Amino acid sequence: MQTVSENRCFGGVQGVYTHASKSTGGDMTFGLFLPEEAQEGPVPVLWYLSGLTCTHENAMVKGGAQAWAAEQGIALVFPDTSPRGEGVADDEAYDLGQGAGFYVNATQDPWKPHFQMFDYVAKELPALIGAEFAIDLDRQSITGHSMGGHGALTIAMSGVTQFRSVSAFAPICNPTGSDWGRKQLSAYLGEDETNWAAHDASLLMADRGCDAPVLIDTGTTDQFGDLLKSETLAQAMVARRQDGQFRMQKGYDHSYFFISTFMEDHVNFHAEALWR
Amino acid sequence: MQTVSENRCFGGVQGVYTHASKSTGGDMTFGLFLPEEAQEGPVPVLWYLSGLTCTHENAMVKGGAQAWAAEQGIALVFPDTSPRGEGVADDEAYDLGQGAGFYVNATQDPWKPHFQMFDYVAKELPALIGAEFAIDLDRQSITGHSMGGHGALTIAMSGVTQFRSVSAFAPICNPTGSDWGRKQLSAYLGEDETNWAAHDASLLMADRGCDAPVLIDTGTTDQFGDLLKSETLAQAMVARRQDGQFRMQKGYDHSYFFISTFMEDHVNFHAEALWR
Repeated sequence: MQTVSENRCFGGVQGVYTHASKSTGGDMTFGLFLPEEAQEGPVPVLWYLSGLTCTHENAMVKGGAQAWAAEQGIALVFPDTSPRGEGVADDEAYDLGQGAGFYVNATQDPWKPHFQMFDYVAKELPALIGAEFAIDLDRQSITGHSMGGHGALTIAMSGVTQFRSVSAFAPICNPTGSDWGRKQLSAYLGEDETNWAAHDASLLMADRGCDAPVLIDTGTTDQFGDLLKSETLAQAMVARRQDGQFRMQKGYDHSYFFISTFMEDHVNFHAEALWR
Repeated sequence: MQTVSENRCFGGVQGVYTHASKSTGGDMTFGLFLPEEAQEGPVPVLWYLSGLTCTHENAMVKGGAQAWAAEQGIALVFPDTSPRGEGVADDEAYDLGQGAGFYVNATQDPWKPHFQMFDYVAKELPALIGAEFAIDLDRQSITGHSMGGHGALTIAMSGVTQFRSVSAFAPICNPTGSDWGRKQLSAYLGEDETNWAAHDASLLMADRGCDAPVLIDTGTTDQFGDLLKSETLAQAMVARRQDGQFRMQKGYDHSYFFISTFMEDHVNFHAEALWR
């Protein structure tokens, strides 16, 4: 692992690191915020998964989460959204290939060799940060935005990790029924739709629900509202009597101005579960 | 004036607008955050002047000021750092020309026709936002970062506007004695150094001081520490018995991670003066 940068931030350190990844077969970059308390011993961690076109950097510089994480004494991890670099498959569209990994393990060419983002985010990177930093892997929560909200919800409901709490900002809720989903799931996983269900938050919610409390915020005037299929997840959450809240925020859109507005609520929601 | 974008943010609106500027002889873009209270009537305003290479956008997306401005019910203005576009002079260096206006009125060619950033920021833009938005021009404060900290301090001490409070993050403190200053002041204002003194915060502080309280934060490990000449301003402030604080923040650098860490302090410092 190599240090790209470390900046003092809210009494802690905002770092950026690269490492050779087994899952994705190339170098991966991630951001990690460690609060001051990490100098004394392991701290809980909140994962933030980013949306389409983003790298590890967007939420790290625009989300404002460090202010609240520092107050709560929890770490933040910002993984990249896909493998990158020469020799990694890509597509001209903004919503397929690099920057658009959708947090799945691709089974189809040309994506299969590198696009193993489920394994990377859910397994490899947690093990790495647990080994390299003062992070308590028994206290993990997860959130994300848009495609990253989809990632947070589906990874949490996969059961690979026992998260203490799960949230999302304007998540893609029902990719098997949306143009933000059908295209990518067919490219990465093939045409057999039975293989898609494990990556659809609404189907997972209906099928098994989430062991941890769930908080969703979505803007009433989100410009991608039709693609998110928020109503499908809301229906599934309530039908299942899921411990959770689905909040529609009046007048907000899909931008980081929306995310930063509600970041305090989300970090505090997770902190309550992480420190219980 | 034209609206580029408006995003709901912390209960208010983060807007971006362009307008034809008389001072700079071209189109200028600025960001403006209006808190929810602006729907009821005029609110106080805090100016944020950005540093070298920045546009109106950097602080608007990375500074985190909206959270605290919304809490305090004050507006934020984010002007650009120079004129831009075709026909506007420029230089290959990052620290001269476009993105590096230094908040002066250029008297030398090729800069003179457009680089009138003192007039633009101190006179034209205040009049515009006072006319177009619910802004109370009797309640203005000013802050900035690096070159923008220099701008905030020198514009405040020019006396053109009676600011209620003045602050800066890692300001360029003594440009007449630094490579961040001598090059630009000679290019924009000519070789006669007597014309430079009105744009040097340390000289202005020694000569006349600031009518408003002053708050400065600079990191102890700022990578540009030698160029800022912080010690010269600190000496001048204390020698003058200026109402103010010069704080050196341990371990912080010149980045927006530093700025966002102390933004709450700065907005609250200004709010106290603006709402008195």
